[in-house]
Amino acid sequence: MKRGVIFGHRDFDKVNNLINKKEDFAVVGGMMPSGQMHIGHKMVVDQLKWYQDKGAMLSILIADLESYAARDMSFEKARDIAVNEYLTNYIALGLDLEEDNVNVYLQSKNDTLRDLAFKASKKTNFNELKAIYGFTQSTNIAHIQAPLVQVADILLPQLEEFGGPKRVVVPVGVDQDPHIRLTRDIAHKLNDEYGFIPPSSTYHRFLTGLSGDKMSSSKPSTAIYLNEDSETAAKKVKTAKTGGRESLKEQQELGGQVDNCVIYEMFVYHLIDDDKELEKIRHDCLDGSLRCGDCKAKASELIVEMFDEIHDKQDEAREIANNLI
Amino acid sequence: MKRGVIFGHRDFDKVNNLINKKEDFAVVGGMMPSGQMHIGHKMVVDQLKWYQDKGAMLSILIADLESYAARDMSFEKARDIAVNEYLTNYIALGLDLEEDNVNVYLQSKNDTLRDLAFKASKKTNFNELKAIYGFTQSTNIAHIQAPLVQVADILLPQLEEFGGPKRVVVPVGVDQDPHIRLTRDIAHKLNDEYGFIPPSSTYHRFLTGLSGDKMSSSKPSTAIYLNEDSETAAKKVKTAKTGGRESLKEQQELGGQVDNCVIYEMFVYHLIDDDKELEKIRHDCLDGSLRCGDCKAKASELIVEMFDEIHDKQDEAREIANNLI
Repeated sequence: MKRGVIFGHRDFDKVNNLINKKEDFAVVGGMMPSGQMHIGHKMVVDQLKWYQDKGAMLSILIADLESYAARDMSFEKARDIAVNEYLTNYIALGLDLEEDNVNVYLQSKNDTLRDLAFKASKKTNFNELKAIYGFTQSTNIAHIQAPLVQVADILLPQLEEFGGPKRVVVPVGVDQDPHIRLTRDIAHKLNDEYGFIPPSSTYHRFLTGLSGDKMSSSKPSTAIYLNEDSETAAKKVKTAKTGGRESLKEQQELGGQVDNCVIYEMFVYHLIDDDKELEKIRHDCLDGSLRCGDCKAKASELIVEMFDEIHDKQDEAREIANNLI
Repeated sequence: MKRGVIFGHRDFDKVNNLINKKEDFAVVGGMMPSGQMHIGHKMVVDQLKWYQDKGAMLSILIADLESYAARDMSFEKARDIAVNEYLTNYIALGLDLEEDNVNVYLQSKNDTLRDLAFKASKKTNFNELKAIYGFTQSTNIAHIQAPLVQVADILLPQLEEFGGPKRVVVPVGVDQDPHIRLTRDIAHKLNDEYGFIPPSSTYHRFLTGLSGDKMSSSKPSTAIYLNEDSETAAKKVKTAKTGGRESLKEQQELGGQVDNCVIYEMFVYHLIDDDKELEKIRHDCLDGSLRCGDCKAKASELIVEMFDEIHDKQDEAREIANNLI
């Protein structure tokens, strides 16, 4: 929150009011079980943890219906990846998923969700979904249903069994905003039956990949995976694109391009909690006195610490994860 | 079977072979819980009973997803109607739903079914469903999903948990043939994963309504409901349109129009089991010696017998029905 991961929102002020008044609200987080979890994903977990610390009910969905529709992944494989890759690391990263106020579920195993998705699907049509998602008439029907399942994921915490209507906040990338708008629209249409409050959302930045492009699960050279050993992680950090100049001389004269540096971004988002320490790095980079090699060395060291801590917790976390769903 | 209720089929010969060889097969029957069950519905129950006597696995679905999509009926109300109106009478009419080889289920409560419907939905698209069902772009998505749920209903008995791939026969009205064709198509597309055998189907006649038009649940003057008391049923029989002539004289000269007589149809399909007795009625009608009043009196008497028998069994049947789903 303090580091500017979130750059936009819809009705977050209302969530904030509830936090200040210590009233009930919920946060929805989800994962599409595919590939490996990387440090970019940690930014979402950090947000969920922040909300949990503020007293939010946590609703975490595993999008196995979506991974089946989009990637032909069997429900068994989706569960396996969700447990061993995602939930294990969520827990190792500090989320408490065993608390009463937490609901972790597989979409395919959640009847209440499916009922709600079905009811939502009665409130929209092909035209509307085409306008939002660009579906064509040859889009398969599973794919057409997927957004309605997501709508239900977001509305689920407002059902009676979770204490009834309440504000829900969904941290998403801005590319997910159409889902939020569709959900708000359908919440309105289902209002008579459920009294839904339109969900709030926040829009977050993504961690830049090591090469300066997008960090991607499927491109190992761009991402540091949470299951990699600490040495591999440290080595990868050293390959990251920095904001360094062509030569040391130029760097000393012009200063580093700190806002265009993957290493500095990792400091900001993951590795350095102390604001003063961070400010000093920023200052020293800009004035040319700090060298990229020094930052890389420091980042490697910190990521080894972070990864050692995560890995220490993984065994226990995996056991907990296995019992959740 | 002997009275020509069925007038067409698709691959029924293969079902017949299995019956003769006493091999496994299944029959799928379903109900959309709406309104009241009438004696026309009994013709389907009679077919299911015929298959059950031949050793078929019985799979009976309650289409509560469809009644929600098409009629906004809540799942609770759908269950209530299914139990008290349909299943109770199915049992009272002689179906044994407590046997091991029977699966009665609510669509909305059947995860396996929903998974299968979802997988089926990946194998078709809007274009194809539009061509079959005439959907438009403003058809709601729940409605678009409904046929895929029916496809899954028909394929369900072939899953491993019911003993794996087997021939399934579905007794339907001819208006349901598009479902069967869609199901055969999707069975083929899911073949790699499931080894599905394309389902067989039979096409049956419907009982004519009392007024000579369609017998309809929603038009009390056309239908005799199974929950009506015997006297009401008997009175209704007397209102039925017969094949009688304008005058008794004309009737004696020309004979009755036996094939255009609702009472005679009731004899054929429901009330008279003895072929010789039926043949005599037909003969005496055609030669003008039988009067419509006599037939109506006989039909009233027989329907009182039938209804008394059904009603005697209803209390016990209702208790069994309540424990099924």
